[in-house]
Amino acid sequence: MIDVSAYLAAHAKRVDEMLERFLSMYEGVPDGLHEALHYSLFPGGKRLRPALALGACEVVCGDPAPALHAACALELIHTYSLVHDDLPCMDDDAIRRGLATVHKKYGEATAVLVGDGLQAMAFEVLTHVRAALVAREIAQASGPGGMVGGQYLDVESEGHRIPLEQVRRLHRLKTGALIRVATRSGARLGKGTPTQISALTQYGEHLGLAFQIVDDILDEIGDDDVMGKRSGKDRARNKSTYPALVGLNEAQRLAQEAKDRALQALAAFGPNADPLRALAQYVVERRR
Amino acid sequence: MIDVSAYLAAHAKRVDEMLERFLSMYEGVPDGLHEALHYSLFPGGKRLRPALALGACEVVCGDPAPALHAACALELIHTYSLVHDDLPCMDDDAIRRGLATVHKKYGEATAVLVGDGLQAMAFEVLTHVRAALVAREIAQASGPGGMVGGQYLDVESEGHRIPLEQVRRLHRLKTGALIRVATRSGARLGKGTPTQISALTQYGEHLGLAFQIVDDILDEIGDDDVMGKRSGKDRARNKSTYPALVGLNEAQRLAQEAKDRALQALAAFGPNADPLRALAQYVVERRR
Repeated sequence: MIDVSAYLAAHAKRVDEMLERFLSMYEGVPDGLHEALHYSLFPGGKRLRPALALGACEVVCGDPAPALHAACALELIHTYSLVHDDLPCMDDDAIRRGLATVHKKYGEATAVLVGDGLQAMAFEVLTHVRAALVAREIAQASGPGGMVGGQYLDVESEGHRIPLEQVRRLHRLKTGALIRVATRSGARLGKGTPTQISALTQYGEHLGLAFQIVDDILDEIGDDDVMGKRSGKDRARNKSTYPALVGLNEAQRLAQEAKDRALQALAAFGPNADPLRALAQYVVERRR
Repeated sequence: MIDVSAYLAAHAKRVDEMLERFLSMYEGVPDGLHEALHYSLFPGGKRLRPALALGACEVVCGDPAPALHAACALELIHTYSLVHDDLPCMDDDAIRRGLATVHKKYGEATAVLVGDGLQAMAFEVLTHVRAALVAREIAQASGPGGMVGGQYLDVESEGHRIPLEQVRRLHRLKTGALIRVATRSGARLGKGTPTQISALTQYGEHLGLAFQIVDDILDEIGDDDVMGKRSGKDRARNKSTYPALVGLNEAQRLAQEAKDRALQALAAFGPNADPLRALAQYVVERRR
């Protein structure tokens, strides 16, 4: 039995250490900006994307060092997207992980710059791996044809119903692309075979869908205290979420189905993949 | 005699073609976001940074293809910084290059996402060069220890006088770092010798300073119609510019001095460097 909390904590520790070291190495950063960058990164959340990259690398028995760089880059990108997503012109959130959001604490201009700076740092970390293909896939997954495109669709869809097919596309871009590239780049940097890389990409893709459906469900029924942020926002903004479109029961069934497909993608792997199996279970059972 | 306008136009054409091709290749980008990205990039400005990268590559007689990729990345980064800088929480500008700024035309949320997307695109272009060191230097020059840090100091310094030494630091980060890395990466990708790379880095450094001082002067005395944007903003915001701190005449003298140093850095080069010499002259004589 894998203890998911301990597994996430162990990987988060390695990622946090590298992020902390990387941030402290930076020269010439104005003090106030340095403080705001640090505030945005620590304490972090679940560090799920880094754990997925490192976990995929473990499945193919790869050297963890390159995957750790990718893991940090993914977390820097994820964090920048949260900082910008919280801005008044986007989701307008005051609380994140139980603390004031960056723009509430340091002002909007600083929050824009913190996000911009985190993204530059992400791509700088990636240059240390010297794996242009991985860097390219991460840039694509986070750019206009990936995460940024999904955020755009999310903003655009506010206030009116969109069909389920479009919600799927929105989620595939907004959350799915970065989770998919997390396992994919971990597998690639761990020097997995093409078949292994493909299986772990499939796993990430289904897991990303499960993750997003559960996110929608938690926004609907979650406990604010457990989540450290305000729930019910999607409904207030009349967002086209899975629960809103297909009902809570069907949304839960779809999340389970996506998780089952994620597990199927791991079928050819032995016990090395147990942490990823446990993470899939965790993703649909989590309460925050 | 070099015709600077023709030189800039010729290089801008190559950069625009590549940016246009790159943007059209992108798959999965939502239509509205694609339109806003295109709007932010075309028609462009002087495309000075690309011309500097390509010009430095010509000085060392290098293959222009890799430098063209860096040139596009630098312009994508420069453009994203303008889009974010124009936001209401930053400089709050309604007009840029004679047209409505991105947030005025498409809304603030889209402007944030356009900037984020352009940055991801910049680093994706760079992965095609497979020159990790150049990508790293560009990430550093544009990140919290470079351009983003300079923007932070700029926002922070508004409304109160700061000493000239700090203004210098602000400019070195905000504008200088990206111009410096433009010539540096052009020289590096053109396979210049260490001495050549160092000389062209020096050139870029002094040119960046001259450019920023002239920018300050133009904001003070420029013609709105020629510039395509509102002038007098710095004074209105009580910004610590060169003219405000040392007076107009001394600012003009400092710009000339920086230009002279830029020219000195090119002393060892022959006629191949004439375009960069002409660009230095142009930078201090321009009216927009």
